[in-house]
Amino acid sequence: TRQTEDVTGDRELHVKTTLRELIIYLAFLIILCIVTFGMTGTSMYYYTKVMSDLFLDSPWTSGGSFRTITSVEDFWKFAKEPLLDGLYWESWYNNQTVPDEQLGYIYYENKLLGVPRIRQLQVHSNSCVVHADFKDVIRECYESYSESVENKEAFGKKDNYTAWYYRSEDELGGSSYMGQITTYSGAGYVQDLKRYKNESEEIINYLFNERWIRRGTRALFIDFTVYNANINLFCVVQLTVEFPATGGAIPHYQLRTVKLIRYVTVYDYFIMACEFIICLFILYYMVEEAIEIKKHKCSYFKSVWNILDILVIVIVLLCVGFNVYRTIKVDELLKDLLGKPDQYADFVFLSFGQVQFDNAIAVAVFLAWIKIFKYISFNKTMTQLSSTLGKCAKDLAGFAVMFFIIFLAFTQLGYLLFGTQVKDFSNFKQSFFTLFRIILGDFNFDQLEAANRVLGPIFFILFVFFVFFVLINMFLAIINDTYSEVKGDMANQKNEFEITDYFKRGYDK
Amino acid sequence: TRQTEDVTGDRELHVKTTLRELIIYLAFLIILCIVTFGMTGTSMYYYTKVMSDLFLDSPWTSGGSFRTITSVEDFWKFAKEPLLDGLYWESWYNNQTVPDEQLGYIYYENKLLGVPRIRQLQVHSNSCVVHADFKDVIRECYESYSESVENKEAFGKKDNYTAWYYRSEDELGGSSYMGQITTYSGAGYVQDLKRYKNESEEIINYLFNERWIRRGTRALFIDFTVYNANINLFCVVQLTVEFPATGGAIPHYQLRTVKLIRYVTVYDYFIMACEFIICLFILYYMVEEAIEIKKHKCSYFKSVWNILDILVIVIVLLCVGFNVYRTIKVDELLKDLLGKPDQYADFVFLSFGQVQFDNAIAVAVFLAWIKIFKYISFNKTMTQLSSTLGKCAKDLAGFAVMFFIIFLAFTQLGYLLFGTQVKDFSNFKQSFFTLFRIILGDFNFDQLEAANRVLGPIFFILFVFFVFFVLINMFLAIINDTYSEVKGDMANQKNEFEITDYFKRGYDK
Amino acid sequence: TRQTEDVTGDRELHVKTTLRELIIYLAFLIILCIVTFGMTGTSMYYYTKVMSDLFLDSPWTSGGSFRTITSVEDFWKFAKEPLLDGLYWESWYNNQTVPDEQLGYIYYENKLLGVPRIRQLQVHSNSCVVHADFKDVIRECYESYSESVENKEAFGKKDNYTAWYYRSEDELGGSSYMGQITTYSGAGYVQDLKRYKNESEEIINYLFNERWIRRGTRALFIDFTVYNANINLFCVVQLTVEFPATGGAIPHYQLRTVKLIRYVTVYDYFIMACEFIICLFILYYMVEEAIEIKKHKCSYFKSVWNILDILVIVIVLLCVGFNVYRTIKVDELLKDLLGKPDQYADFVFLSFGQVQFDNAIAVAVFLAWIKIFKYISFNKTMTQLSSTLGKCAKDLAGFAVMFFIIFLAFTQLGYLLFGTQVKDFSNFKQSFFTLFRIILGDFNFDQLEAANRVLGPIFFILFVFFVFFVLINMFLAIINDTYSEVKGDMANQKNEFEITDYFKRGYDK
Amino acid sequence: TRQTEDVTGDRELHVKTTLRELIIYLAFLIILCIVTFGMTGTSMYYYTKVMSDLFLDSPWTSGGSFRTITSVEDFWKFAKEPLLDGLYWESWYNNQTVPDEQLGYIYYENKLLGVPRIRQLQVHSNSCVVHADFKDVIRECYESYSESVENKEAFGKKDNYTAWYYRSEDELGGSSYMGQITTYSGAGYVQDLKRYKNESEEIINYLFNERWIRRGTRALFIDFTVYNANINLFCVVQLTVEFPATGGAIPHYQLRTVKLIRYVTVYDYFIMACEFIICLFILYYMVEEAIEIKKHKCSYFKSVWNILDILVIVIVLLCVGFNVYRTIKVDELLKDLLGKPDQYADFVFLSFGQVQFDNAIAVAVFLAWIKIFKYISFNKTMTQLSSTLGKCAKDLAGFAVMFFIIFLAFTQLGYLLFGTQVKDFSNFKQSFFTLFRIILGDFNFDQLEAANRVLGPIFFILFVFFVFFVLINMFLAIINDTYSEVKGDMANQKNEFEITDYFKRGYDK
Ligand SMILES: [Ca+2]
Repeated sequence: TRQTEDVTGDRELHVKTTLRELIIYLAFLIILCIVTFGMTGTSMYYYTKVMSDLFLDSPWTSGGSFRTITSVEDFWKFAKEPLLDGLYWESWYNNQTVPDEQLGYIYYENKLLGVPRIRQLQVHSNSCVVHADFKDVIRECYESYSESVENKEAFGKKDNYTAWYYRSEDELGGSSYMGQITTYSGAGYVQDLKRYKNESEEIINYLFNERWIRRGTRALFIDFTVYNANINLFCVVQLTVEFPATGGAIPHYQLRTVKLIRYVTVYDYFIMACEFIICLFILYYMVEEAIEIKKHKCSYFKSVWNILDILVIVIVLLCVGFNVYRTIKVDELLKDLLGKPDQYADFVFLSFGQVQFDNAIAVAVFLAWIKIFKYISFNKTMTQLSSTLGKCAKDLAGFAVMFFIIFLAFTQLGYLLFGTQVKDFSNFKQSFFTLFRIILGDFNFDQLEAANRVLGPIFFILFVFFVFFVLINMFLAIINDTYSEVKGDMANQKNEFEITDYFKRGYDK
Repeated sequence: TRQTEDVTGDRELHVKTTLRELIIYLAFLIILCIVTFGMTGTSMYYYTKVMSDLFLDSPWTSGGSFRTITSVEDFWKFAKEPLLDGLYWESWYNNQTVPDEQLGYIYYENKLLGVPRIRQLQVHSNSCVVHADFKDVIRECYESYSESVENKEAFGKKDNYTAWYYRSEDELGGSSYMGQITTYSGAGYVQDLKRYKNESEEIINYLFNERWIRRGTRALFIDFTVYNANINLFCVVQLTVEFPATGGAIPHYQLRTVKLIRYVTVYDYFIMACEFIICLFILYYMVEEAIEIKKHKCSYFKSVWNILDILVIVIVLLCVGFNVYRTIKVDELLKDLLGKPDQYADFVFLSFGQVQFDNAIAVAVFLAWIKIFKYISFNKTMTQLSSTLGKCAKDLAGFAVMFFIIFLAFTQLGYLLFGTQVKDFSNFKQSFFTLFRIILGDFNFDQLEAANRVLGPIFFILFVFFVFFVLINMFLAIINDTYSEVKGDMANQKNEFEITDYFKRGYDK
Repeated sequence: TRQTEDVTGDRELHVKTTLRELIIYLAFLIILCIVTFGMTGTSMYYYTKVMSDLFLDSPWTSGGSFRTITSVEDFWKFAKEPLLDGLYWESWYNNQTVPDEQLGYIYYENKLLGVPRIRQLQVHSNSCVVHADFKDVIRECYESYSESVENKEAFGKKDNYTAWYYRSEDELGGSSYMGQITTYSGAGYVQDLKRYKNESEEIINYLFNERWIRRGTRALFIDFTVYNANINLFCVVQLTVEFPATGGAIPHYQLRTVKLIRYVTVYDYFIMACEFIICLFILYYMVEEAIEIKKHKCSYFKSVWNILDILVIVIVLLCVGFNVYRTIKVDELLKDLLGKPDQYADFVFLSFGQVQFDNAIAVAVFLAWIKIFKYISFNKTMTQLSSTLGKCAKDLAGFAVMFFIIFLAFTQLGYLLFGTQVKDFSNFKQSFFTLFRIILGDFNFDQLEAANRVLGPIFFILFVFFVFFVLINMFLAIINDTYSEVKGDMANQKNEFEITDYFKRGYDK
Repeated sequence: TRQTEDVTGDRELHVKTTLRELIIYLAFLIILCIVTFGMTGTSMYYYTKVMSDLFLDSPWTSGGSFRTITSVEDFWKFAKEPLLDGLYWESWYNNQTVPDEQLGYIYYENKLLGVPRIRQLQVHSNSCVVHADFKDVIRECYESYSESVENKEAFGKKDNYTAWYYRSEDELGGSSYMGQITTYSGAGYVQDLKRYKNESEEIINYLFNERWIRRGTRALFIDFTVYNANINLFCVVQLTVEFPATGGAIPHYQLRTVKLIRYVTVYDYFIMACEFIICLFILYYMVEEAIEIKKHKCSYFKSVWNILDILVIVIVLLCVGFNVYRTIKVDELLKDLLGKPDQYADFVFLSFGQVQFDNAIAVAVFLAWIKIFKYISFNKTMTQLSSTLGKCAKDLAGFAVMFFIIFLAFTQLGYLLFGTQVKDFSNFKQSFFTLFRIILGDFNFDQLEAANRVLGPIFFILFVFFVFFVLINMFLAIINDTYSEVKGDMANQKNEFEITDYFKRGYDK
């Protein structure tokens, strides 16, 4: 938006210009908000919840659920019961059989698109070095997963099940997955399930009996997508079990509820219209910013507000682009898929993109809101506060540097001391946020003490004393002192012509 | 109450008047407190607890309870076991049969008034638009519930059970219900249970076998009322299971423990007397305020204290009105009901009114308490503090505006980023309160991180840094600075004649 | 202790006197600490824990435990399984029978003193008024428990079991019990169990079959005492189940681990010696204080330190008295009891006294510690801080009054709005502490919202805003301002002769 | 490092020297960080987790797990099921038998080194004094554990199982163990298990049937070590069950995941190189510090920075020493062990040392980080903040003393009042940290209230009021006041030549 500093000379003119700018900006902001709120809705959360209740929390007979998987055995228990029961709803609750045309719906409502796919990744034997002392005793050794040590050879029975043969990421058209431990490639040994429960059960039992999951197995994926026509939402489900090199198993999951088909109801078309208006606004702002850049050159980039403007414009442009791409792509995919219901339907990449799109829009709206502060000079109090913030920014920044050096030193200490025992300190990032949470009063002291009876409490006391008692209070001291100063300055200063005066005068006439 | 500013001139007279006013006011306040505390009691909480233990937490054989219902199947399990066992107590704990005249009491103590009612609401098929791509595959589509798409046609067996026939809100005399997801009308397909367990069990099994709950079902209500003569309390129980368009089920409940019959014991009649005195006080204050309004006209409404006065008077008047209505209505209802024990007894509306009545009184007492501050000028310290608050009110308000703009920007960002995954951000309101709770140190960081590995932590850090470290400290800076100023001013000022002086002088004489 | 203000004139003499006083005082304090720490030990906690694990948390076959009792039925399940299994250990873990002389030990270690006693309290029928409308339908009515409506008539089979006959508090030598809901008298229908498991089981089954617990039953008590010779500790166990007038049941318990026999080992005799020294000190201080009171008369009581002194002396004297009484009484009781092992052993009153004794000592030590501050004038910083506290005490007190008026208004509002639904607000006291906990960041927002969707959040926001943001910060403003002032004053003042100077000079010589 | 104060005279030269020193120091710091981060990794946490999931959380048939053991019976349930199942993996998940050469691996991945060892400690009968009153009734008495009352006699069947015969700490080469209650010696009655499941099962059943755990048993240890070749980590597992003199049982455990073989992969050798460089740096710093000590004598030790230097050097030297020792020792042990697979492998001491080594390094790095502040005088803001901290250090320290006296008085009061009932106050240390946690908002008010209905809440309110409201705010007042002062001083002072100026000038040239 135009730089208000240009307009020198007459104070009244300046106010007038600002006001006009503000009104245009508010119009833009409101429409942006409408669009973003139109994209989402509470039913999205309920959809995610229903799916997670069904697949992650449904227990198998002996009591565990997906979330509590700790061994290969647990995984098979999950696959045989909650997974199959969750995917195939072939009888009503009173045990009547569901008619054939209503089959293939989870909870009788959510169409399973295509068939679910099971995939595993292995590392090859002797992918790591065994120490000389153990060479004679330990003959096989399976490294932690990384793409370079992936096993690519066929194994097991090698019959006509695809499960025994490796297929590369390109062949599968897959994409990589970021699990709890590491990132996995999209390749692997793949087995698609079938449309009916008994057929799928047979496959799972076969894989179980033939010991498909072996010592080298490092990760196992179950992917499928459901579509709910009532609320027009897709849910892309990715259930993963990681088998770390330590033995045992760690479950992970990704449920992405997305609105891939965006324009169906009347309300959707209203949103579409708003989106069009947004594009017009963006064009207008692009022109304006271009003019300003030409005029001010480098100095243009010194203002935070200008950088905000450019960020918002760029994000919105990217989103518009993706929107077009997504609309075309989904249509294509669906047409292909609905013809071949026995095929696996890969919506992973699209849903990932859609989530990024939603996030980008969210950030854009946030930035747009923040820009409102540019126009806030309604009255003295406001100015006083914002100039306090502005004035102590440098001091705060300087202090923040000091603060973070000490904070990081504590983070590292916490990680090294408790990392092997306590989940909250198991890596540097976790350790950082755990310490942050201590400041806010959310922590687990008992764990710390259990991990190290002596250093745990000492670490805790030192941290609280220095960071909570001393450093946090410095923040306040800085702000407090600056506020007094600013307030003192203000008192001496004569009132400038303000927006409120403008209205008052209008009213007086 | 009389505006103390009127009395100019003699300072001593002013103090005397204030004192008299204060004493009258305290009398009013004390009687008001007696009345409100007389209306409630700890047994109310225990009653609610006993009912919720029985209906919400009693498990069925395979382990779940009302609170954990996630599917239609779960609901039937609940209905067949905990619900029937909770409603009908037909044998003592040692399996002796309860004699006939003691039947119909929950826990042998709480009379079930009339019979329980089960009600469902449906939406009609094809109440929503299916996207062109899916038209061939998905032939039925049931929209989320709203009154406009309610199904009103008879369905199923259409035999002489009322359960298959739609009845409107007027026919049923029902009222709408605000559930977890949306608000439901009071209409629907209704089936009353019977007075004996085996009969009711038969009905439930019949509905189960005939698949009464269908794809279009969007909500199911179980309503009944119990009365405990020992403690003279009603408990109106509303158990609801919502079936969202996503599939699955969400349980909801409302337990309203109310004292609908207010005057039974001697203590009750004492409260009645107090209520009568309150009415007199209110009359007195009404007259006084009327005189003042006449005198001061508009300027009367500029004082916060006057507005408080009027609020209190209006609330109390409304309550008096409702009290009369309730007493008559309950009597009527009970007479009707006790004659026909096989009929459903609808206390929903009355109990709802009674709860509002209790809340209104509570708010009135709160406001009355706050008004005490009008009279606080006992000594210098007090004045100093209240004038600090008064003086920084404008600055605080200005700052609060800034604070809430940033806060709302974060709320929106949180909602859009995490809304589909995290319950605490699943709608705007939740998001707002979740951020509020972060400030107070009550939050779940792991959820945030699970929802978005990158933006979750960044959001958290930014929020804590800006809002917790910077903005919250501004509050303090403002108050701190103002306090110093006020204290400085006070020190220079000569002591005014205070209430304490008045007492001192009386004592000296 | 002597009032240091007396010593005027020479500053050095003053320091010398203070120093001597301080040394004597420290000697007193250290011995007091030795005595108090000698009275307790971590094994006390473990003893309580072991007993509570055994009786409160051991589950019965179908899954509940004492803590989860919600109905009469649950109680009988508890009595038949965890209670009997916990009281009688008649076989080793590998199912060998325990020899007869080792019977009667819980966990094979803790001697059950005498036999356990079961007691119930009832209210009589028609102890309350039934409203006219219900008179025809509801014929029996049992009031909430209070001593005045206690049922005193024999009931049931009236055979030679004592369980059917009422005995008064005096007959039983019992004492009243403060439960969750109300306080119960020590009277009631009593049945002692036997020394062997099968006999006790028979009694319990008999009571169960004859429906000993009836509608009028309001509370049920199980009392017994165990003694562990290894660590010389008694544990007095009182398990209570309250049956409120609402129906249902609420479990309550009291485990008092006390050292009733105080002098057994060598270490015990060392503590005894210390106690003797304490008595001497107390004599010394009594004399001193008496002299001072004579000298200063009323003005003596104006100093906080003097009141502290008197408090400590009184508490210690009371404790000495109880100590003597206890030693005699326990011996008497034990001798009586060990002769008649089939009798119930009532240690309730003694253990109650002992707990009060321990608490009184704890408070005395706390007060003694606080008194150290009287002597702290080591250096300037200390003086500066304590005089800040002293100076702002009046302002803080004034503010605290304001604070608590608002706080209590919120407490009352919370109680009235949410009391019927939320445990944390179920009575005034709970409500008060719940709001206190909100300030510290420990609260349950979801409960509040569930109780009242509209007023819950509003209440929360208002409370946090006014109390957490505004009022709490006032505390800081007061302290901050006073500190600046005091520091300024100090800077101008010349250094007085201080204790450190005294040492320094001694060192210089 | 060289004392920068030496370089007087030319300001520019001073900056130059500082800069060179800083760069060298940063190089040292970075390599130190590389080494420490090279020593650890997230797989360490996962290894601990997998082992703890397996042994501590696996349930036995009737529902408990190691963590919930409360009696001898529970222990045997654990030993018969989760322990044996966790140690011996003799069939794949689909029930195929594991081939013989792959036996002896937990989770098929983690080699069990040697065989597990079970050990118990007893106290001898009549190790304590029974009070005169009980002498006739209580004939046996077993004191709480301490080495002096250890039972050393053979007991039970005395057949050729080693389990019946006492062996001293020297014979076993064991080391003492710090449990929940007390510290246990390394001696005791020892029974090694076997390499195959059925043999080990036989031993456990034999011990169970012969009642190996007796009344005198005070602790039971299960020790074994596993090695994972995939990730080259050892995990030393110590499961302990303590049987306190109160009866019952308390489980405790120690899982030490350590990298005892440090140099295997290429990356390991890179770390080795870094370690070598660190040694060179240390040599350099040792020389420098030696020179400085010679020059400045005692005054050298007055600077905090110098003491930091010496601490870091000493710690690193100790670590280098241990590193050499460990490398040799492990090799020795492994060679010995792999020859005799039926022997118990004692890695307890080595793993303990390794953990201390890791902690020492962690502390050294932390100290090294803190030293960076010595060089921070980049710009005015920084100086301002660090000089504020420096200036208020004395006041803060003085205040901290006051604070901790009051805090300790509360700690003691809490311990004495609630110690017998509440875990969080069960000993002085716990009490201290519990109060600390109250300040941060993490506490359990209900426990306090349950322990003492009257004193609990009073204690809580008093503590929060004095410590949270008043004392904590004093911290802020001190810092706030000092900051204002320092800022005022700075404003008057002329800018000194700073590092930033140096760069600026270099840039200008
Ligand atoms: Ca907190």
